[in-house]
Amino acid sequence: MKAILYDATLREGAQGPGASFTVEDKLKIVDMLDDLGVSYIEAGNPGSNPKDAAFFKRMEDHPLSQAKLAAFGATCRVGVAPEDDANIQALMSANTPVVTIFGKSWDFHVKEILKATPQENLDIIAITVRYFKDQGKEVVYDAEHFFDGYKRNPEYALKTLEAANGAGADWLCLCETNGGCFPHEVEAITKVVADRFPGARLGIHAHNDTGMAEANAVTAARCGALMVQVTIAGWGERCGNTDLFTLLPNLQLKLGFDCLPPEKLQSLVSFAHTFHELANLGVNPRAPYVGFNAFAHKAGMHIDAVAKNPTSFEHVPPDAIGAERAFLISEVSGRTAVLKKIQRIVPGVKKDSPDIKRIVQELKQLEYQGYQFEGADASFELMVLRTLGLHRPFFTLKGFKVIVNEPAAEGEVASAMVHILVDGVEEITAALGNGPVNALDRATRKALERFYPGLSSMVLSDYRVRVLDSKFATAAPVRVLIESSDLNQTWTTVGVSTDIIEASWHALVDSLEYKLFKDNVKQKELAKEE
Amino acid sequence: MKAILYDATLREGAQGPGASFTVEDKLKIVDMLDDLGVSYIEAGNPGSNPKDAAFFKRMEDHPLSQAKLAAFGATCRVGVAPEDDANIQALMSANTPVVTIFGKSWDFHVKEILKATPQENLDIIAITVRYFKDQGKEVVYDAEHFFDGYKRNPEYALKTLEAANGAGADWLCLCETNGGCFPHEVEAITKVVADRFPGARLGIHAHNDTGMAEANAVTAARCGALMVQVTIAGWGERCGNTDLFTLLPNLQLKLGFDCLPPEKLQSLVSFAHTFHELANLGVNPRAPYVGFNAFAHKAGMHIDAVAKNPTSFEHVPPDAIGAERAFLISEVSGRTAVLKKIQRIVPGVKKDSPDIKRIVQELKQLEYQGYQFEGADASFELMVLRTLGLHRPFFTLKGFKVIVNEPAAEGEVASAMVHILVDGVEEITAALGNGPVNALDRATRKALERFYPGLSSMVLSDYRVRVLDSKFATAAPVRVLIESSDLNQTWTTVGVSTDIIEASWHALVDSLEYKLFKDNVKQKELAKEE
Repeated sequence: MKAILYDATLREGAQGPGASFTVEDKLKIVDMLDDLGVSYIEAGNPGSNPKDAAFFKRMEDHPLSQAKLAAFGATCRVGVAPEDDANIQALMSANTPVVTIFGKSWDFHVKEILKATPQENLDIIAITVRYFKDQGKEVVYDAEHFFDGYKRNPEYALKTLEAANGAGADWLCLCETNGGCFPHEVEAITKVVADRFPGARLGIHAHNDTGMAEANAVTAARCGALMVQVTIAGWGERCGNTDLFTLLPNLQLKLGFDCLPPEKLQSLVSFAHTFHELANLGVNPRAPYVGFNAFAHKAGMHIDAVAKNPTSFEHVPPDAIGAERAFLISEVSGRTAVLKKIQRIVPGVKKDSPDIKRIVQELKQLEYQGYQFEGADASFELMVLRTLGLHRPFFTLKGFKVIVNEPAAEGEVASAMVHILVDGVEEITAALGNGPVNALDRATRKALERFYPGLSSMVLSDYRVRVLDSKFATAAPVRVLIESSDLNQTWTTVGVSTDIIEASWHALVDSLEYKLFKDNVKQKELAKEE
Repeated sequence: MKAILYDATLREGAQGPGASFTVEDKLKIVDMLDDLGVSYIEAGNPGSNPKDAAFFKRMEDHPLSQAKLAAFGATCRVGVAPEDDANIQALMSANTPVVTIFGKSWDFHVKEILKATPQENLDIIAITVRYFKDQGKEVVYDAEHFFDGYKRNPEYALKTLEAANGAGADWLCLCETNGGCFPHEVEAITKVVADRFPGARLGIHAHNDTGMAEANAVTAARCGALMVQVTIAGWGERCGNTDLFTLLPNLQLKLGFDCLPPEKLQSLVSFAHTFHELANLGVNPRAPYVGFNAFAHKAGMHIDAVAKNPTSFEHVPPDAIGAERAFLISEVSGRTAVLKKIQRIVPGVKKDSPDIKRIVQELKQLEYQGYQFEGADASFELMVLRTLGLHRPFFTLKGFKVIVNEPAAEGEVASAMVHILVDGVEEITAALGNGPVNALDRATRKALERFYPGLSSMVLSDYRVRVLDSKFATAAPVRVLIESSDLNQTWTTVGVSTDIIEASWHALVDSLEYKLFKDNVKQKELAKEE
């Protein structure tokens, strides 16, 4: 079975709360989708906002390797010829090979929202579709509220499809616009449509307001909807839409559909990370397939079983979508998980050794303070090495002082003084910064780069703060996560304190120590082995 | 139709990545669930971790109004009598009216993970269930991996249910443990089981690894599974489980099931907020029904239609679960949304007035700087009032200085000096704090309470930080959100700056100004109206 992917992130996804794409963002996302292999990219509503019109202009000199670009808009207005309708002409100006026209299927909407007669609505659907066909466009007809409309007035809903189909629409896409239908309803209604329009190519567009976006999409696909409309990470109005990252592996890995070459599926996790980096958001850890938790096992019994045979608690092999298995460290995870992690750091350490006991004790103590190592592997590694006396610190702090002034003097509000010791040599430096942590970061690097010039290749790439006990508000302990990168690697470190500067300092020290450790100790060990 | 809710948050939910409950948290959550009206509360695995055993001890003096408490654990081991099996005895010590026993349904698991013969597995299921029945317990039998097991070896999977049923289990709960099945499979298999065990009471336990947890649960319920196992917010291993907040309204508001009295459903959003506050996390904004976005409309056309008739884009009325409709402000929302929000603040302002234009311009300018008002209504209200010259500030800042020292002198690392002006009267104060923002908060209140003693009733209840452009790491602009509460209300304010202290300061000022505004201006206006 074949399924055709139609991505609507740049239109529907942009309607998701919190979403906002620049024209540059949109160009990058179009390229990513084209490269992944989706067949259609719905990229904006040129009639509704000027940014989308500017984007389509840019696309004229931006060829795609295989995907077809679609512009999205409404039918023409009642009594206005397409030639004179500003929205229709905005769609024409978008100059795309495909236009996607949405029209009303639900008589209640025709009457209450469109304020038109049932026949007028049928007319504008047919006129609009025929106009774009005459202009040589491929036309996707989005039957808005189709399922809700069908449930109330099946004959009228089918007539709207007939109007589009009769006018030559290439696709009839059934939209579950309000997200309130269930798979058994979608199954029954899609089958009726497939029976009624035997030659037509059908599609499905689903929303997640009852948590059914994924189920309704695969159900319609199984009942003959060849085109599935998705958005990246399920972004869209309200609770969002069918998620490309869930739908694609569901269809291809689990239900026997043919969507993309297998090696494209293996890039899915990396696609998810790149997209979220662009959107400056983290991937939802609980997202099926691409979320960090999707193959992360926590309960001791699960970990033991997965260690014996991954099929026991994994419904697909993680590498099919480029994901990695993880064993999480916590009070419910048991010793196997901790042991497995520690053995990656200190090969050969035995399950019942006193070393393991000391590490587990240290871990519990730190977790009690608010540390959490699930997302901070570099700090976990340093903690293990420190506890076993295997890490010699590259520098020692004698003290720091951070000052923030408002109003700011000379434009830079924060300054920091840092006093460190490296192999008995003292260094004291100061730096200004955009903020206190930035000033501290700059002053510390200034002091250290004299001893370790390699640090200049490292950047702090992300900085996150979580308040641990909101009851205490600004007096609450905070957990800071710092993500750092150099040319070869990205690593994350953690610090906890009631003082955000101190918490940041702990995470910063771990980040620097980890960089120095991996460049000076790990690499030498690798060199020895070779 | 009746559906019985079985909540497993305190066991399965605690296996969710990132989840960790203290004994005190667990007691509060048990009370919340009991009060909401779920029938069963699975509260821990006393054999797997000592914290759960301590919790069950505490529950002995903690009566519930209607829910039954369940302890969860595995069948006895092969060749060990229940009397001699430590896990079985831990379950007995939990002293709960209900025990939930999970056993293997999938022959592959029996062989590879349990390392037992098929017959040995059937024996331990029967022995364990009979043992607890003889001790007077209500027994829920969780058939782990039932659907996966059935797909590979249907006869053996059914035999495991027979073993539990024959031994007197009160419930046969079919578990979709790996989360890899689809509704059409769950439908077919549940119907077979219902046919094979006509007198038995069935249940469903579903995971979300393919995004099907909600669909599989309602499908099984429609096919005769009377008990639905859920967790709060869908917390659980990997991608989580069927979500109480989605399942309950799906069954009761949409599919005609009878679960709870309607007024309990109306407390669902407030339940969601209380739970997340306890867990110190925000409610997932995209969650069906209870998420902030569930009834938040963004596209201009949607907003216009909902303003005409909410049914047009809402599948249930938001007040059925205690939710509120929102219109979001953004480039795709059109002027209706902005206008509606502004009219709530300044009644009578007209769509085409120059006031609206000035506000929209100011809004665009602030959004360009990194402000976002979707989650910060109090700051939005102040921005509108300030732009229209309708807000007289209650105080002016002359300056502040914040100092952080490491090592800390006298235990408190941060200090702040604040210099303000109220109606021409100067005040300068200083305070220590656990961190710089805390010190600044304390010093500011100390200065202001002399003029406005009412401020003492206000607390900062949450503090969040988001780095806006991770490319610049610690030099990046940050957005700070502060949530504040008094006895009557909770409000959120926002500040943006490259300096976290300055961003916090802006959010703090808005929070204080809003409190003073609502106590001194709004209340007087209300009093005048009455």
